[in-house]
Amino acid sequence: MNKMKLVINVLTVFFSLTVLAQTKIDRIKVKGNEFVNESGKVVVFRGLNTSDPDKLKTDGVWGEDYFKEISNWGATAVRFPVHPQAWRRRGKEEYLKLLDQGIAWAAKYNMYVIIDWHSIGNLKNQLYLHEMYYTTLPETYAFWKLMAERYGKNTTVAFYELFNEPTMYTHKFGTITWEEWKAINEEIITIVRANGGEGIPLVAGFNWAYDLTPVKYNPIEAEGIGYVSHPYPMKREQPWEPKWTEDWGYVKERYPVVLTEIGFCDETAPGAHVPVIGDETYGDAITDYCDEKNISYFIWVFDKKWSPQMYVDDKYTPSRQGKYFKKKMKSYKN
Amino acid sequence: MNKMKLVINVLTVFFSLTVLAQTKIDRIKVKGNEFVNESGKVVVFRGLNTSDPDKLKTDGVWGEDYFKEISNWGATAVRFPVHPQAWRRRGKEEYLKLLDQGIAWAAKYNMYVIIDWHSIGNLKNQLYLHEMYYTTLPETYAFWKLMAERYGKNTTVAFYELFNEPTMYTHKFGTITWEEWKAINEEIITIVRANGGEGIPLVAGFNWAYDLTPVKYNPIEAEGIGYVSHPYPMKREQPWEPKWTEDWGYVKERYPVVLTEIGFCDETAPGAHVPVIGDETYGDAITDYCDEKNISYFIWVFDKKWSPQMYVDDKYTPSRQGKYFKKKMKSYKN
Amino acid sequence: MNKMKLVINVLTVFFSLTVLAQTKIDRIKVKGNEFVNESGKVVVFRGLNTSDPDKLKTDGVWGEDYFKEISNWGATAVRFPVHPQAWRRRGKEEYLKLLDQGIAWAAKYNMYVIIDWHSIGNLKNQLYLHEMYYTTLPETYAFWKLMAERYGKNTTVAFYELFNEPTMYTHKFGTITWEEWKAINEEIITIVRANGGEGIPLVAGFNWAYDLTPVKYNPIEAEGIGYVSHPYPMKREQPWEPKWTEDWGYVKERYPVVLTEIGFCDETAPGAHVPVIGDETYGDAITDYCDEKNISYFIWVFDKKWSPQMYVDDKYTPSRQGKYFKKKMKSYKN
Ligand SMILES: [Mg+2]
Ligand SMILES: [Mg+2]
Ligand SMILES: [Mg+2]
Ligand SMILES: [Mg+2]
Ligand SMILES: [Mg+2]
Repeated sequence: MNKMKLVINVLTVFFSLTVLAQTKIDRIKVKGNEFVNESGKVVVFRGLNTSDPDKLKTDGVWGEDYFKEISNWGATAVRFPVHPQAWRRRGKEEYLKLLDQGIAWAAKYNMYVIIDWHSIGNLKNQLYLHEMYYTTLPETYAFWKLMAERYGKNTTVAFYELFNEPTMYTHKFGTITWEEWKAINEEIITIVRANGGEGIPLVAGFNWAYDLTPVKYNPIEAEGIGYVSHPYPMKREQPWEPKWTEDWGYVKERYPVVLTEIGFCDETAPGAHVPVIGDETYGDAITDYCDEKNISYFIWVFDKKWSPQMYVDDKYTPSRQGKYFKKKMKSYKN
Repeated sequence: MNKMKLVINVLTVFFSLTVLAQTKIDRIKVKGNEFVNESGKVVVFRGLNTSDPDKLKTDGVWGEDYFKEISNWGATAVRFPVHPQAWRRRGKEEYLKLLDQGIAWAAKYNMYVIIDWHSIGNLKNQLYLHEMYYTTLPETYAFWKLMAERYGKNTTVAFYELFNEPTMYTHKFGTITWEEWKAINEEIITIVRANGGEGIPLVAGFNWAYDLTPVKYNPIEAEGIGYVSHPYPMKREQPWEPKWTEDWGYVKERYPVVLTEIGFCDETAPGAHVPVIGDETYGDAITDYCDEKNISYFIWVFDKKWSPQMYVDDKYTPSRQGKYFKKKMKSYKN
Repeated sequence: MNKMKLVINVLTVFFSLTVLAQTKIDRIKVKGNEFVNESGKVVVFRGLNTSDPDKLKTDGVWGEDYFKEISNWGATAVRFPVHPQAWRRRGKEEYLKLLDQGIAWAAKYNMYVIIDWHSIGNLKNQLYLHEMYYTTLPETYAFWKLMAERYGKNTTVAFYELFNEPTMYTHKFGTITWEEWKAINEEIITIVRANGGEGIPLVAGFNWAYDLTPVKYNPIEAEGIGYVSHPYPMKREQPWEPKWTEDWGYVKERYPVVLTEIGFCDETAPGAHVPVIGDETYGDAITDYCDEKNISYFIWVFDKKWSPQMYVDDKYTPSRQGKYFKKKMKSYKN
């Protein structure tokens, strides 16, 4: 070993120790229909979605400051949307480095992490909304096996969101039954747990992760999991509350529920699209609904360009929804 | 934008308009066991198979003259056999340009089009007769999704032939049940229609698209489709007619039937192979059979080399079957 | 054709004839629970595992001398573990040349061959112990189709071992039921036979090809096959015999059984790992057990480095298990 290599190695070790230094954070568990910490205290998360770590890295934004800012906005957790195409393009080894960093930065600011396999479409038929969401069932299994092996004992990584938004898109992606989807999720949960994943699997329903009605008669056969919905403003017409209860809110009576994506923007905002157009009326409705039922939620998305964006420039100046949710999140007493 | 680019763009627009100019052609629909036009008149197609557009392009034959010639032979429709390997090798974008052109040329000469996913084998096991036929179930779904999106409203594209020749090849390709094959076809039909495909799906049976006997007790569960058979001379021994009726002809009593491949050649002809060896006796038998029952048919293949070829040189001089079918097709009063 | 090409072609033909010259060897068949030769005489195999032919070629060991040595150790058969990754990396054409050679050399020394698709894991989920074992179901079908086409009539190739070690690895690779595994094996057997494979398919059970208990109530539905177990020393605790009988030995009452991998080494031996650590006590137990029941066995592995190795240097000096099994194999009167 020559001297230069030695210097680099010492620096590497030093860097790693610095980055990974952290207070041990409680393992979050499921108890009945709630998440609890190691003292048994109920924990409700109000968090932010980062954009894809790969995208943030390319933008030069992926760094401790980004996480510090998120923490300053009042978030107690972050969700990392790992796009399958980005995962393959950057390569497993390089992408894992990003996740290692992000998890460490989140931990430093006492925030929990959801790792989200960010695909949209019908995994059974391999039909997706866009190439960036393309994956296969074996790739999905392998991804979760690796996540469990690598982060399964890391208490910061509280959640594994198995598949972002399952949808048949009015059958443009063909068909898949709840029974088929349930079996896929149960298989992933088996794989996660057998490989040491001690975090909480989160399972979404159809209609772009909106509809959880089949859980009523045919829930996922696994303990210690949570369910996901993405109730954007336009998924239903006002008054929203009775429909939300019918579609996904009722699940909270028996299981934990996490809204891993909520958010709104003007129809004139850059990138505005169905179903995210809305305003503070929606903000009040969804946060009140969640607060009343101890439902955790995550705002989409802490990015300058992805829509609905939360900030509008390199100084993290809040967008309209950014202002709303920053104030809201900071109002909670954690 | 510099001047040269402008010139090229203007030329491109001009070229596109020229190519795509066409009289609106009737949407063909299924009514009972017949195809009908928008006036409700029964339509029976006598058409030709082109060789693969990719192959014709490489040969320098893909052009308006080729379609003009086909029209001169009396064809009222053409079938484009899209080989999965050619589809991938040329690339989706480039291949679509060929289809755009071919559809426009067909329309100019008032001919309808069958788009044919030209694979041969067992899609369930991904075992095929040759690498050129290799595909996967997700690729097949994605192909038809794209065809429906791009050509679904184009009335020239009357038919979607979902899979050319399903076969277990005496189990050399393993097994697949009719129920499994039926479900695959129903899924593709769902995808085609959800993505705007207003044409008519055509479904083939086993034994290299010969055998439709399972339709009797277990037809495809979808409205507005047709069935396919490829009754080449050697599929059965003479007298053919009672066997044809038993194997696939009986289907015409309830559903439209299209023989998307028929043809014959001498055993000494270039490329002669089982099951295509035959003569005008076969020609008379199959065309009489079809004419009596209003069954549409397409001759394989309008190419100089692929067998059984329809012409033998660059001047489109008819081969033996070419002479036979040219005369026959021109004898119909359309 | 120029002269140099002619010389090369003549040499190629000469070489091929030399390599392929061989006495016709009996086709081995299944009769009841035994393997028999063409005279109906019961044959029990005691053979060696080569390492992967691709690896031996790279090491410069793949040659007639290697087979001569194996024969000198008393083996009457060899098993070729074809790793899917090596198969793809070397390329089908080049890998087939290795198999052609190995089969010819085996034949020259009157040894039979097992072709073994050497994967470890859950083929249904495409989760494996290591990348070298990665394959897919269609690739597996295609491999066996090709083996049947190429070697199906070659009497030297007595056995087709369809999949080396199926395992869920305590569900690290997810789940697969015996019914699912059985169906996959039956499909491969159908493909092998339809493509002319006249050899004997060998089927393994779960727990890394150890557990054959489901055969009791739900055997593979195919005639003329054998079952496989890999009862390494640590799969069970002593006394082994009653457990072996319960787990796989009982199968021999109705079907042929082949232990395609047995072997042992010290815990200090290079590469020693669970479950192969053991000593001559195990050697005596397993060979006595097999001899009493006419169960064929193959020692893993005739390589200098792969563990448990059978020799330790380039002069084929036996390792500890090498000494044991060389003496044992030479003690049989064939
Ligand atoms: Mg849906
Ligand atoms: Mg979304
Ligand atoms: Mg054909
Ligand atoms: Mg197992
Ligand atoms: Mg082994």
